[in-house]
Amino acid sequence: MTVPYKQEEHKLTMIPGPIEFSDEVLYAMSTPSQAHTSPEFVATFQSVLKSLRQLFQSTDASAQSYVLSGSGTLGWDVAAANLVEKGDKVLVSSTGFFSDSFADCLRVYDVDVDVVTAPIGDVVPLDQIEAQLNKEKYTAITITHVDTSTSVVSDVASICAVVKKVSPETLIIVDGVCSIGVEDLKFDDWGVDFALTASQKALCVPAGLCVFFASGRALEKALSREKDSTFFGSLKRWTPIMKAYESGYGAYFATPAVQTITALKVSLDDILEETLQKRLAKQAKASTKFKSEMAQLGLRILPVNDTVAAHGLTAVYFPENVNGAELLAKLAAKGFTVAGGIHKALVGKYFRVGHMGRSVYAGHVDLVSKAIQETVKELRQ
Amino acid sequence: MTVPYKQEEHKLTMIPGPIEFSDEVLYAMSTPSQAHTSPEFVATFQSVLKSLRQLFQSTDASAQSYVLSGSGTLGWDVAAANLVEKGDKVLVSSTGFFSDSFADCLRVYDVDVDVVTAPIGDVVPLDQIEAQLNKEKYTAITITHVDTSTSVVSDVASICAVVKKVSPETLIIVDGVCSIGVEDLKFDDWGVDFALTASQKALCVPAGLCVFFASGRALEKALSREKDSTFFGSLKRWTPIMKAYESGYGAYFATPAVQTITALKVSLDDILEETLQKRLAKQAKASTKFKSEMAQLGLRILPVNDTVAAHGLTAVYFPENVNGAELLAKLAAKGFTVAGGIHKALVGKYFRVGHMGRSVYAGHVDLVSKAIQETVKELRQ
Repeated sequence: MTVPYKQEEHKLTMIPGPIEFSDEVLYAMSTPSQAHTSPEFVATFQSVLKSLRQLFQSTDASAQSYVLSGSGTLGWDVAAANLVEKGDKVLVSSTGFFSDSFADCLRVYDVDVDVVTAPIGDVVPLDQIEAQLNKEKYTAITITHVDTSTSVVSDVASICAVVKKVSPETLIIVDGVCSIGVEDLKFDDWGVDFALTASQKALCVPAGLCVFFASGRALEKALSREKDSTFFGSLKRWTPIMKAYESGYGAYFATPAVQTITALKVSLDDILEETLQKRLAKQAKASTKFKSEMAQLGLRILPVNDTVAAHGLTAVYFPENVNGAELLAKLAAKGFTVAGGIHKALVGKYFRVGHMGRSVYAGHVDLVSKAIQETVKELRQ
Repeated sequence: MTVPYKQEEHKLTMIPGPIEFSDEVLYAMSTPSQAHTSPEFVATFQSVLKSLRQLFQSTDASAQSYVLSGSGTLGWDVAAANLVEKGDKVLVSSTGFFSDSFADCLRVYDVDVDVVTAPIGDVVPLDQIEAQLNKEKYTAITITHVDTSTSVVSDVASICAVVKKVSPETLIIVDGVCSIGVEDLKFDDWGVDFALTASQKALCVPAGLCVFFASGRALEKALSREKDSTFFGSLKRWTPIMKAYESGYGAYFATPAVQTITALKVSLDDILEETLQKRLAKQAKASTKFKSEMAQLGLRILPVNDTVAAHGLTAVYFPENVNGAELLAKLAAKGFTVAGGIHKALVGKYFRVGHMGRSVYAGHVDLVSKAIQETVKELRQ
């Protein structure tokens, strides 16, 4: 696919989202107006909803994909407002800032939340999760696949296996914001009930979309609730809309983001054409290379070891005797935006580099790696 | 401003939103990636938040503008979840489908809703609103400035005056989805407390943004609530974020839609450069011309008279002895998408033509008018 558009040179956005976008995706953002129920847009949205089934590795017809205007944060509301009810107990497996924020969201809906917290840079030990599930009856467990604050990746498959063994009726909710499209997530095989992400991460599309996938079991629960606790985020209201679009008919509850959804189609087509597994492998390889380059430079990553380190971003401690703010400023001057650390206990002590999607393919990861190597050397002099 | 982009010829979207967009706005949608806290995007968002004060005709420093990823529907949730509490009484002034849906949204939050309903095609009589306000104590009243289902425009100024006289402590909430940017709304002068719209209407930007404005009085109430009833739509969480961006600092609660907000800046700059009042006048003139052309063709508009007819769209009954579906299909074949009617009592009996923003300036309104004239003549033969 060639498009009559080439983005201008600009500072490369190498944070854990928004990431860099392809010319094709950006050009789709400028698609001329289409009515949200026009045959043209219905075909686009239908394709997106079908492709998402492949992205979530699901063939279960009772499951459903959703795209709403919003962000990953809205996905938390959807889960909290539809899948659990006031007074229900929910277990939050926390690997950082985003896991804890999801817990905050759940509390807004009067859910009784227990949090098992990982040591900084590590995952929650499986036996701790198992013990907790044995101790209490939980309606749901939330797992942050990749907590973007620490760059720790949780072993969702193993946690799911524990849940299925100890408490099979507990719904499994996965925050896949920094994972879907860059980490492996087998929705059906692992028995996940709800997984959410946002467009500006490994889906490789500008921010503005909340994307999620719900199992038949989760939907049965959400659709049989006596009372909604949200209007905009209601699965009762959105499910018939998504089913209509996926069947090739327009329907209305709230106006969808026509242009951003068109960009999502371009990106999903691209991802699925390469095949998801090849894409995951390519991004993992780029991540390993980047991490080894940081190690050669003497920098230490935040995750306690490579097996708990995510593939879509790298969190790295600032080198000793190097001013972190100066490092980031010099990288910006060289044309790279990377992110500061946001884990409360470690603010100012580390930084984060995103390497999902296009930046892997366009060579940006090598460029930012070289720039970091040069800059650290300059600052160490 | 000239941009190296010209949108392809396409079927013109002449519905009451999404509307047609300018090349400049569409080009801004394809802005290369920027971090949501980058100096570049912070400057853009700052400008947008400041410009919105002008759009809402407010100089009150205690008021605040907001832009969230979402749609107009989300704006209802924000109002319902932040400005009123469980058990509060709210008066809904209903002029159609969207007013009634706002009432549905309020009920989700356990608000006690009374609806005063206008006759189809008319507004709610002022004395009926006054009588109701005398009868009961209402925490808030909702007014749908333009109900897109009927194209009826409510006299918000007069309703506000009645509320101020009879029940000054009642918060005034205006659904301005099909009004802000095409109908006059004097937020400060009229004493409005909350007004909401969406990007794809007279703001002339692709769908994906929920835009709203809150008075100091509304904010005092929202920020002093003991308990939130939404997470994503919480004013407590968003207010410091918007204040930060407006002051020139990035802040994070949920990732903003960088590209669509950049497009909103282009559009707001354009609107304010022309001046809002000139723009309102120009759109009103185009509306009057279009309506008189429909009248000359023997078509009757849905609003009972011109004083209650909105300026951003026209709802017209299908001519007698003309098959409505055939008329819409023929218009589509000629390159125009117009909208069917959605008022439950009148489905299939009327259609709606949007004429906001760019279509007024680019001559689309005259084109669609001619196409309707031709097609009606063809079908009458």
